[in-house]
Amino acid sequence: MNVKRTAEIYKEIQQTICHILEEADGSGKFTEIGWEKEIGSGITCVMQNGSIIEKAGVNFSNVQGNFNANMAKLLGENASTFAATGISSIIHSGNPFVPTIHLNMRYFKLDNGSSWFGGGIDLTPAYVNLDETRLFHQTIKDICDRFDIGFYPEWKTWADDYFYLPHRQETRGIGGIFFDRIHPSDQNDFEKMLKLTAELASIYPVIYSQLIKNNGHKNYTEAQKKWQKIRRGRYVEFNLIYDRGTKFGLETEGNTESIMVSLPTEVEWVYQYHPEPGSLEAQTLEFLKKGIAWV
Amino acid sequence: MNVKRTAEIYKEIQQTICHILEEADGSGKFTEIGWEKEIGSGITCVMQNGSIIEKAGVNFSNVQGNFNANMAKLLGENASTFAATGISSIIHSGNPFVPTIHLNMRYFKLDNGSSWFGGGIDLTPAYVNLDETRLFHQTIKDICDRFDIGFYPEWKTWADDYFYLPHRQETRGIGGIFFDRIHPSDQNDFEKMLKLTAELASIYPVIYSQLIKNNGHKNYTEAQKKWQKIRRGRYVEFNLIYDRGTKFGLETEGNTESIMVSLPTEVEWVYQYHPEPGSLEAQTLEFLKKGIAWV
Repeated sequence: MNVKRTAEIYKEIQQTICHILEEADGSGKFTEIGWEKEIGSGITCVMQNGSIIEKAGVNFSNVQGNFNANMAKLLGENASTFAATGISSIIHSGNPFVPTIHLNMRYFKLDNGSSWFGGGIDLTPAYVNLDETRLFHQTIKDICDRFDIGFYPEWKTWADDYFYLPHRQETRGIGGIFFDRIHPSDQNDFEKMLKLTAELASIYPVIYSQLIKNNGHKNYTEAQKKWQKIRRGRYVEFNLIYDRGTKFGLETEGNTESIMVSLPTEVEWVYQYHPEPGSLEAQTLEFLKKGIAWV
Repeated sequence: MNVKRTAEIYKEIQQTICHILEEADGSGKFTEIGWEKEIGSGITCVMQNGSIIEKAGVNFSNVQGNFNANMAKLLGENASTFAATGISSIIHSGNPFVPTIHLNMRYFKLDNGSSWFGGGIDLTPAYVNLDETRLFHQTIKDICDRFDIGFYPEWKTWADDYFYLPHRQETRGIGGIFFDRIHPSDQNDFEKMLKLTAELASIYPVIYSQLIKNNGHKNYTEAQKKWQKIRRGRYVEFNLIYDRGTKFGLETEGNTESIMVSLPTEVEWVYQYHPEPGSLEAQTLEFLKKGIAWV
């Protein structure tokens, strides 16, 4: 029953997210594709080539099935069946001054009695804007604080550790929050977590609309666009090498197009690309570190 | 001693490969960067923005060290120390009618008495040319046959299985050969395998020069270039999700820039991109299947 209710709420939020993003973009429209596989069903909403948004994917899924060896390995639990529902989204802007943003909220239930919430929101700018970074963290913190004052500090550190590329010694962006295996202790606690994840998912498109409003009109040079594409290469590296959602999706034979919609359209890899010391690009690299106290 | 001799030979071949590729490209030049880390040393030769070659990496490495838990897991063996030397290369052309090609030859030695050769060559066209595909397979087969008539058929199937993207249900390209854990039975057998891997590595730039000569002058449209970039997305997916060399490199904290030089410069991911039925692009997809007998 908890899975069904969570699914209904997440599914509704998916529609709201798409609506708000269409408004913010002004011309881009989402196409909606429902999918059904043995494992369950989902709805993939994708906008490509909007006026500001280059690619946005907003996925909802509701799956269940037999718990297999791969999942046991990935989750470190044993069970016979599982059910899971989640909403996930990534938005890539064509304008290098509008960051990439990511959201994921999910609820898992195993037939061994174990159930938990997981998720996160994080921001990945090609150019770090300090005011926007602080406001982003403050907004997330304010929501978390209303539920538990301990959530933000713990989950902010978790995001720093999770959204990290060890082979580049860089964080993916300026972080946000990440949490996993938050087991509700009772039904009240479940309701609390459901409300929190719903609020975080609901603020997500509002935050992005503001980022578009602030930066979407800014002019940029070809060199700045190239820098954005190179930074996106790091994003692809993270998603394909480390991201658990991608791994889980591929391992459970999820919908490939829905999983890969997280990848930006245009990406570049340049060997030994080092920005000029003192440049805006070099400054951004200075902020891609763990443990920066943004609020 | 076998590691040292293999390293010397592979290192020399690296120089030859670069020389032949520079000749074939006409204007692009390789830059050579030596690197040294605790684990060993290597030479990374990279050409970017040649007249035909968009990016080519030719890596040589010679490493040794303590055998750690990650390696034990990856290799399925236990030992205290290891030594390894290898040559690996990927070439991406700016012209969509010139395929991407990949070579890897390596020799591993553990202090538990185990030693082996591994490697492969495979070709990934954005547009499959049947004559070139057959000639490519025939050339590789001819070399293998002179050493052991059983090698090509076995290693061709191995390549079909290895260079495969299960989430796309596509082979990476039109295949080639792949082999691993070929344990020499004695010193004669070692010499044979060293010679075979050296011959395969030596024919590699010759094959590519011919592909440039055949196709490098061809005109292409923007749509064909876009198709190439989308196909490159699959290449990136393979390298970052499945490729053992990349995984091994990252797990052993190898040189990140040298590992990632395998990725093409310009790449695209488009959601739900389906080529027109009957088009050259759709025809190419028909050939990205396991088990096609090219010779």
